[in-house]
Amino acid sequence: MLSDFSDLSTFRTLLGAAHGPDAAANAAAQERNSQLTKPPRALGRLEDLAIWYGGWRGTGRPEILAPQVIVFAGNHGVTAQGVSAFPAEVTVQMVANFEHGGAAINQLARAAGAKMDVHALDLDRPTADFTQSPAMNDADCLAALQTGWRAVDENADLLVVGEMGIGNTTAAAAICAALYGGDVADWTGRGTGVDDAGLQVKTRVVAEGVALHTQTPHDGIDILARLGGREVAAMAGAIAAARSRNIPVILDGFICCAAAACLQEISKGALDHTVAGHQSAEAAHSVLLQKLGKEPLLSLGLRLGEGSGGALAINILKSAVACHSGMATFAEAGVSDS
Amino acid sequence: MLSDFSDLSTFRTLLGAAHGPDAAANAAAQERNSQLTKPPRALGRLEDLAIWYGGWRGTGRPEILAPQVIVFAGNHGVTAQGVSAFPAEVTVQMVANFEHGGAAINQLARAAGAKMDVHALDLDRPTADFTQSPAMNDADCLAALQTGWRAVDENADLLVVGEMGIGNTTAAAAICAALYGGDVADWTGRGTGVDDAGLQVKTRVVAEGVALHTQTPHDGIDILARLGGREVAAMAGAIAAARSRNIPVILDGFICCAAAACLQEISKGALDHTVAGHQSAEAAHSVLLQKLGKEPLLSLGLRLGEGSGGALAINILKSAVACHSGMATFAEAGVSDS
Repeated sequence: MLSDFSDLSTFRTLLGAAHGPDAAANAAAQERNSQLTKPPRALGRLEDLAIWYGGWRGTGRPEILAPQVIVFAGNHGVTAQGVSAFPAEVTVQMVANFEHGGAAINQLARAAGAKMDVHALDLDRPTADFTQSPAMNDADCLAALQTGWRAVDENADLLVVGEMGIGNTTAAAAICAALYGGDVADWTGRGTGVDDAGLQVKTRVVAEGVALHTQTPHDGIDILARLGGREVAAMAGAIAAARSRNIPVILDGFICCAAAACLQEISKGALDHTVAGHQSAEAAHSVLLQKLGKEPLLSLGLRLGEGSGGALAINILKSAVACHSGMATFAEAGVSDS
Repeated sequence: MLSDFSDLSTFRTLLGAAHGPDAAANAAAQERNSQLTKPPRALGRLEDLAIWYGGWRGTGRPEILAPQVIVFAGNHGVTAQGVSAFPAEVTVQMVANFEHGGAAINQLARAAGAKMDVHALDLDRPTADFTQSPAMNDADCLAALQTGWRAVDENADLLVVGEMGIGNTTAAAAICAALYGGDVADWTGRGTGVDDAGLQVKTRVVAEGVALHTQTPHDGIDILARLGGREVAAMAGAIAAARSRNIPVILDGFICCAAAACLQEISKGALDHTVAGHQSAEAAHSVLLQKLGKEPLLSLGLRLGEGSGGALAINILKSAVACHSGMATFAEAGVSDS
């Protein structure tokens, strides 16, 4: 069992201390790729994905056998401000839907051959309204990070984290505005579908939260606590756990990437084990992906959350690894290589 | 068994006579989609794909159980002109690689849960060099179309067609230039990787072929015969068979789309049952997709052929259909829908 953490400063230290990919495995994967029966670079990004995956897994000929999808759910006090098109009860209703197998993420995880777990975090105890006080105190944030960290299977070889939480695109917009600055309106989108009036309210609420919580010194974890939510912190904890255990992660949409951004603010290499699964239709997601330096694998107009875009991309990575490890070399197949 | 054809003019007639999707099934799929536990449009293009697929399969709640990938191989007399980075022997060597399971398409078909078939068309009898005479006479073109038509499984519910044929991006470029006009250089790319000198030769060869074979009246099938190849015609035959049997098709890259373009030239709705699986790195493919009015599902820099980009997209379509048919409705899940 890898070291856990019992306070936020230990979590910060763990983030910076994680090892990188295995250089020898990376080189072996690169060498193998150059011998496969195809013209050089003919599999495009699939080649890069397989080599990257092999490096993190410590082998030149990797397999993906145990992908895990984890959906975290949390409730947000800021919904009292009228920032969402759906009522807050929907969070708990959707958790039941996940547990009964009826949501999009259930179908997508199954189609990807992934195990799916659901963690509901204190749904009857919403975070505080961040226009009034920090969404979470340090103890609440720590507990959520630990939930995420511990939710990652010991034997998982690929991870997708998703979320459900009415109001959480508001939290994600506030996190991004606090981390990166810029016009708050550029970070604030329609989420599940607020109308023009709702969008105005949402933008004002985000601006108030950012103004209130960036007056005092802060780093990515402070921002996560003050403006995020339990499910957002849990995603960050799970992504960090995967980094510690060399488990590659496929990032989902805007909220997942906002959680990830808090980690990168603490440690520059904290997301080296991640790829962007997709570009969401939530407008700010493409800007956020640029900030993270990630090019999405898919861009199909999804804006659902739940981990849906990340799960949809699992089969792309599986296919890349299947080509890399399953194809014959020129020598094995007796094919002329020029 | 659906009607076959014994001459090219019957084939032309069959193309125009095929039925469209089932309007009632389409409406039922649209209605179901509106009730699923997600915000409206939150699954983006996945929603459109599932509804489209349901319409073609005649049901509001479709499944994908029997996808088929067919790889056709042919040899091209035009390789004598030095248009490819690889020698013509590679075609037959790669067919052996397909048969032994060592090629990229074998891994991709398996990862997509698809059956894979390989049809080598008279590899020891290359088509004629189209700078000298038509690549195929009518009898050869008919035989190749029939091979493709008959290769489609009776019970397939999704089709990808791919190809192997050293020299066939030259044929595809010539087809496109003949069908759509424009600067021949804009249709001519590096294929498996010719250098600058090779690209110059290839462009001149394409220009000569187009000039020679567009002097007399011609339609899409004439162009297919005069400038295409056996595997290109077989792909066209298979796509047409799928149209007749309401089997949706995921188009692959430049060569597959050039084959498809010949059908569309004959009958405007000939490709209504197709989606573009990906945008290839072969530069002219994006232009060709625009001509066909198709937006690609993936754009990952692949330029391999074999059906690789189409096969990679099978899991996208499967995931779309799995969400559509497997998700709970708001009523079933007891989730508030606003």
